[in-house]
Amino acid sequence: MAKKNAFYAQSGGVTAVINASACGVIETARKHKDKIGKVYAGRNGIIGALTEDLIDTGKDSAAAIAALRYTPSGAFGSCRFKLKGLEENKLQYERLIEVFKAHNIGYFFYNGGGDSADTCLKVSQLSEKLGYPIQAIHVPKTVDNDLPITDCCPGFGSVAKYVAVSVREASFDVASMAKTSTKVFVVEVMGRHAGWIAAAGGLASDKDCELPIIILFPEIAFNKEKFLAQVDATVKKHGYCSVVVSEGVKGEDGKFLSDQGVRDAFGHAQLGGVAPVVANMVKDALGYKFHWAVADYLQRAARHIASRTDVEQAYALGKAAVELALKGENAVMPIIARLSDKPYKWKVGVAQLKHVANVEKMMPRDFISKDGFGITDKCRAYLAPLIKGEDYPFYKDGLPKYVRLKNAAVPRKLGEFKV
Amino acid sequence: MAKKNAFYAQSGGVTAVINASACGVIETARKHKDKIGKVYAGRNGIIGALTEDLIDTGKDSAAAIAALRYTPSGAFGSCRFKLKGLEENKLQYERLIEVFKAHNIGYFFYNGGGDSADTCLKVSQLSEKLGYPIQAIHVPKTVDNDLPITDCCPGFGSVAKYVAVSVREASFDVASMAKTSTKVFVVEVMGRHAGWIAAAGGLASDKDCELPIIILFPEIAFNKEKFLAQVDATVKKHGYCSVVVSEGVKGEDGKFLSDQGVRDAFGHAQLGGVAPVVANMVKDALGYKFHWAVADYLQRAARHIASRTDVEQAYALGKAAVELALKGENAVMPIIARLSDKPYKWKVGVAQLKHVANVEKMMPRDFISKDGFGITDKCRAYLAPLIKGEDYPFYKDGLPKYVRLKNAAVPRKLGEFKV
Repeated sequence: MAKKNAFYAQSGGVTAVINASACGVIETARKHKDKIGKVYAGRNGIIGALTEDLIDTGKDSAAAIAALRYTPSGAFGSCRFKLKGLEENKLQYERLIEVFKAHNIGYFFYNGGGDSADTCLKVSQLSEKLGYPIQAIHVPKTVDNDLPITDCCPGFGSVAKYVAVSVREASFDVASMAKTSTKVFVVEVMGRHAGWIAAAGGLASDKDCELPIIILFPEIAFNKEKFLAQVDATVKKHGYCSVVVSEGVKGEDGKFLSDQGVRDAFGHAQLGGVAPVVANMVKDALGYKFHWAVADYLQRAARHIASRTDVEQAYALGKAAVELALKGENAVMPIIARLSDKPYKWKVGVAQLKHVANVEKMMPRDFISKDGFGITDKCRAYLAPLIKGEDYPFYKDGLPKYVRLKNAAVPRKLGEFKV
Repeated sequence: MAKKNAFYAQSGGVTAVINASACGVIETARKHKDKIGKVYAGRNGIIGALTEDLIDTGKDSAAAIAALRYTPSGAFGSCRFKLKGLEENKLQYERLIEVFKAHNIGYFFYNGGGDSADTCLKVSQLSEKLGYPIQAIHVPKTVDNDLPITDCCPGFGSVAKYVAVSVREASFDVASMAKTSTKVFVVEVMGRHAGWIAAAGGLASDKDCELPIIILFPEIAFNKEKFLAQVDATVKKHGYCSVVVSEGVKGEDGKFLSDQGVRDAFGHAQLGGVAPVVANMVKDALGYKFHWAVADYLQRAARHIASRTDVEQAYALGKAAVELALKGENAVMPIIARLSDKPYKWKVGVAQLKHVANVEKMMPRDFISKDGFGITDKCRAYLAPLIKGEDYPFYKDGLPKYVRLKNAAVPRKLGEFKV
């Protein structure tokens, strides 16, 4: 096998642990210098490849790369940019191959969600067509936890932990205030289509620490009357309650409870602000004093409370991607395969990208309680191991020490390309 | 000195460390059983005293009381209930004395903010008038950091740390996304009148890790044109920016930028939702894609990222309150006195309540940069030590182990009293 360089890029919304995957890719590649030359990263994701804006990760020290494991966000920049079908957008795919050829790149590691898995698959298909060999490996990442085949997605466990911890803390707070003040606390969490993140709010309550929590899932059509009755009954019984609402909750008419009308580059509706909608419903109908929060980026960037399980899996999948490449694999994605719930055991497996691309994994209906407002024991058994363990970053003067890399540019060899 | 029982109550909005003060009070009282008999807590704050709804903290083990140090919220329940002037509300004050007398209470420890300091002072005055001796000691607590004389208030340092850490993390996130997606991230933080919490967002950026952050303080009248110009210039220079906006920001007309029209029991406007207002201004005028978050209770309940300095001071002031009582002091409040910034040194001092009650400490103008959008070095020197050190709670199965006490009721001796 001739020595080739590798290309790595981050795609879509970043997470608390996507850099841990980058760390796994780069550290593992550095251990195989006989087969993998340089590791180039795309500045701002795939756009960096298209515009030949490559970063030489070799300019960063082993210590800096190791610190990626503790640093949230996308160290090389990410982008929301979906390559369309091969026929519609042949120029872009050909440009990718041209850039890879110019920089002797034989390995394409793409770290993203469902859309990126699709791009990754197409790159490998085109490489075959054009006769320039590229091994395309997808490294899964998404806080939404909606990729198929893999038991879970790196990024999700840490958001889940943030949400579970925060809902527990806020519930304790509301309980203290409920006698004369706030009785209902509403927190909005991410999850455009799938309620995995909202479900994690249910973990805040367990047998050691029962808390009255109502969850609004995007999978369950919102019914105002049923919801208000649930809130009222819960407050009457416990004196207060917390409501965890997914940004993606829709009414029975199929419309988002709150839609700002803005769409992102993938054409997805850009949501936010369902918490105040729900909180005001409670106030208007029941008169309970409320508070509401919208976690937004705070939840997915919260490396300070990352799940150790999640960090380990993110790293392991980055490492596995390189190992799969070295084994000659192509158009695949390393995955987490669960071996047992209790004790939690997992191993790295492999999925074919053709089975991954453009498939969304929703919450199974039996993960949501019959009344639609909570999680079942089955869901709890699935979620609980994913938030296990803490993995604190290092601190200096009270603040986490997050690394910023040099991100040194690789000299260009080709002409300009407009994206 | 005849042996007397003690009464302890929590007042107003709770914090991540008010229970650390409770821990300091109870553990210290337990060490002086020759002088202090039982420690009774008011269930739901002062309402518990008025309605003779007392909790016997003696029913909880040393381990449970020690765990208070790691548990956010108010373990005995708090309340928003301000006793009015002695003349207007003599019945209530007399009732307090009656309850204290019935339960042989000689020490009144009141853990709250400015309103509670005022109540505490009045209790001591009335006790003198009615000839029933009560030593009233106020234990400071407020995330708003707006009490006078004390260098800082327990509760603030932990919110400040949460905000500084979260703004750093979210800024890293936005930086990754800015090329094709979000360029402006807006986070709303607490601080009704004083910008201390918003200022803490400025700590996210330091010489090791510079970040483009714009702060909107309640002390600076909001000027839309200047703000938009600042955002535009910052995005043009850095590619993105984070905006930290205090819930209490007012326009030049003196009106809150966002006022839900709801008022709490103290008559304070109940705010929330200024983040979307500001974010939409940016979108409408500049067209930048935005995200926004409202931290609300998540910030003040976030014991998982509490400041070690804050926890130590909260405990120390609870302990000092008991020690002051044992020395025969009355109508006082233990305070934090700063001895030096670097290295940070502090000691516990004492303030007379008559100098504390109903005085609000605002941010000095020279803590805010000339342009009104940032913090000065002087402010940084003040804030930096307060977020120093981590003090993680214990975890089980990925979640913090927060204690819930028995809160066993003390048998009543008096008739009913309506509040």
